[in-house]
Amino acid sequence: RINGARLWAALMELAKIGATAKGGVKRLALTDLDKQGRDLVVGWGREAGLSISIDQIGNVFMRRDGSDHTLAPVVTGSHIDTQPTGGKFDGNYGVLAGLEVVRTLNERNITTLAPIEVAFWTNEEGSRFVPVMMGSGVFCGAFSLETAYAATDTEGKSVGDELARIGYRGEQVPGRHPIGAYFETHIEQGPVLEDAGKVIGVVPAVMGLSWYDCVVSGMEAHAGPTPMGLRKDALQVATRIMQEVVAIAKRYPPYGRGTVGMVQVFPNSRNVIPGEVKFSIDLRNVNEALLNTMHEDMLAYIDQTRRDSGLAIGIERVSHYPPCPFHPECIDAVRRATAKLGYSSMDVVSGAGHDAIYAARLAPAGMIFIPCKDGISHNEIEDAQPGHLEAGCNVLLHAMLERAGV
Amino acid sequence: RINGARLWAALMELAKIGATAKGGVKRLALTDLDKQGRDLVVGWGREAGLSISIDQIGNVFMRRDGSDHTLAPVVTGSHIDTQPTGGKFDGNYGVLAGLEVVRTLNERNITTLAPIEVAFWTNEEGSRFVPVMMGSGVFCGAFSLETAYAATDTEGKSVGDELARIGYRGEQVPGRHPIGAYFETHIEQGPVLEDAGKVIGVVPAVMGLSWYDCVVSGMEAHAGPTPMGLRKDALQVATRIMQEVVAIAKRYPPYGRGTVGMVQVFPNSRNVIPGEVKFSIDLRNVNEALLNTMHEDMLAYIDQTRRDSGLAIGIERVSHYPPCPFHPECIDAVRRATAKLGYSSMDVVSGAGHDAIYAARLAPAGMIFIPCKDGISHNEIEDAQPGHLEAGCNVLLHAMLERAGV
Ligand SMILES: NC(=O)NCCC(=O)O
Ligand SMILES: NC(=O)NCCC(=O)O
Repeated sequence: RINGARLWAALMELAKIGATAKGGVKRLALTDLDKQGRDLVVGWGREAGLSISIDQIGNVFMRRDGSDHTLAPVVTGSHIDTQPTGGKFDGNYGVLAGLEVVRTLNERNITTLAPIEVAFWTNEEGSRFVPVMMGSGVFCGAFSLETAYAATDTEGKSVGDELARIGYRGEQVPGRHPIGAYFETHIEQGPVLEDAGKVIGVVPAVMGLSWYDCVVSGMEAHAGPTPMGLRKDALQVATRIMQEVVAIAKRYPPYGRGTVGMVQVFPNSRNVIPGEVKFSIDLRNVNEALLNTMHEDMLAYIDQTRRDSGLAIGIERVSHYPPCPFHPECIDAVRRATAKLGYSSMDVVSGAGHDAIYAARLAPAGMIFIPCKDGISHNEIEDAQPGHLEAGCNVLLHAMLERAGV
Repeated sequence: RINGARLWAALMELAKIGATAKGGVKRLALTDLDKQGRDLVVGWGREAGLSISIDQIGNVFMRRDGSDHTLAPVVTGSHIDTQPTGGKFDGNYGVLAGLEVVRTLNERNITTLAPIEVAFWTNEEGSRFVPVMMGSGVFCGAFSLETAYAATDTEGKSVGDELARIGYRGEQVPGRHPIGAYFETHIEQGPVLEDAGKVIGVVPAVMGLSWYDCVVSGMEAHAGPTPMGLRKDALQVATRIMQEVVAIAKRYPPYGRGTVGMVQVFPNSRNVIPGEVKFSIDLRNVNEALLNTMHEDMLAYIDQTRRDSGLAIGIERVSHYPPCPFHPECIDAVRRATAKLGYSSMDVVSGAGHDAIYAARLAPAGMIFIPCKDGISHNEIEDAQPGHLEAGCNVLLHAMLERAGV
């Protein structure tokens, strides 16, 4: 069994970097704070005797050798970047749970057959740079290193430059690093486990996702003298689409999701009719056919709105991954570990994307969820119970040991 | 008659300060560029022999003495601050038309009985600081100097500090400066004159205005795992109100106006359900009872939405002035000057607020409109014809001469 107090202490220590007044964390990908967080975790890895390698997109792998050098490593990991108003556990838990597994194995002098690795992937959150889950996406070839390097934040700073600036643009070619199996522990980020009173979520699949940038172009004009009938108000047209995004998601329950999270209005002055509105659209479903139908519904609505309003409306898909079912062997390894340890459990479909879905393209993969308070994440008040964090980490230990062999 | 070419040259010269790539001007109130603009106009005033005085809110008065020292001056003016994506004529025309009147009187050696003054008022646009029409508002006592000084921009910089920084926090107590009559020339900022093919708009009244800040507070949560039915999406609720603002305006034609120009979404991340949305509301009507009804309709809708959604919704009125009918004597002076000069004309209600409505609280006031291209202003493509600019300035000259006496 792992040491829950030590795991908790590591989580609280890492959460100090970028800590916000409201008890959350703001540690956006490839900022100075991300560098501080990375340095802290890498330091802990070295202290635990792990050998460190960094690839060209800044993914970090920390390796504990096994006895059989012909075997590919059993990898666990997640990310340490956060949302602008993020919490202490999202991502960080998956990385530090891996570190705690290693510390436990060290303490017990357990040598596995296959090597054990703890990874953290670059820019999982996708808040500062798109595509989301960038490090694991490049690693599995979902998109190219060049695409990722060229991605810029709202200030025009690029991933390539920012990686170099913080000293995490490594040498290793992404994906050249073999993986035997992959596990990831994570807070659920939804209310299902808490509502059901269960400790462990076994994750059969992750919802597919499509992200879009939508731009409505009208005509800036003065809010006073311009008669209502002569306006080309970009915001009035954009808000109709924003409402439809939610209506579409509600048409495809229980796993349809539709969200507009980001909006920019130009010129954003009280007495100017908006000339342009840019906003993001996030559509999800665990059923690929339904996700495609949602996509079609949205494009049809935008076509209709373009005709009705006479305004120009641009729509571009900027990120996409299909629903990802996990590997039966890994799902079963999680189930067996949970049963062996005597934790209550249930299946929980993941609405959030995780690096595990990209790792799953290269090796058998699975995930372990634990409850989070009120199902809330991507919020500074995100919270999780020490007992649940410990339980998830114990399940991880046993699932990894089963895969790696002792 | 005034010199149209000289007026045009002055407009183009002033438009260089803060010129934008798209041919507009960005010269926000109390910025370094505003200071440069002020210095240029004050320099021109001095060259024309005018004596300069500056009051505590940064209003500038440039005086040409009359022969009768017992008479209060006939004042004309407007503003030189612009919208973030503003044009060359809004405000600037009214100030430089006044300067051109003075230059013409100098050239012809005409001495008026009453003094003639050219004024420019601080922060008319209200883009950087609220309340709008700040300088003239403080001058006529619509709100206090302390209120104005305390107003801050989005970066937290205050009017008091910024005035001092650019060297335009004068000594004179606002309002202690007597005004005998006030005229203001302005582009129409709407399509009425152009549509009707008329050169001069005689302005019987200015619409009343109410500005509001609205804040919808929901709950930030992850866009993927949070089921649609459990969300408290602040943007979905805010967009309903944004649509209603326009619907309300359309219920009170022909002079009802409703605009949402400014929106901020928090935390503004693609995969976070918005926890808070702040936005502005601008309601106008020329009929005071209807403006009040629009206000009541909006509050009722917000109450209803608060009940329906269960979300907290804050609404605060941050600027207000009632509809302002101009003085019959000044309206008639404009009519007579127009007729004498032989320009086509019609009555045009002003949808835009102008410093003239505050001046009208202290002295008889009137306005002269000229057409602007496609009725567009508060846009970099704002445009006006040299012939129209010249005509408006000629009307100003004759209306002022009639009031001042020769
Ligand atoms: N786990 C997580 O928050 N991932 C970010 C990508 C997503 O929006 O699902
Ligand atoms: N004339 C003008 O643009 N004034 C600004 C105040 C308003 O929004 O009407």
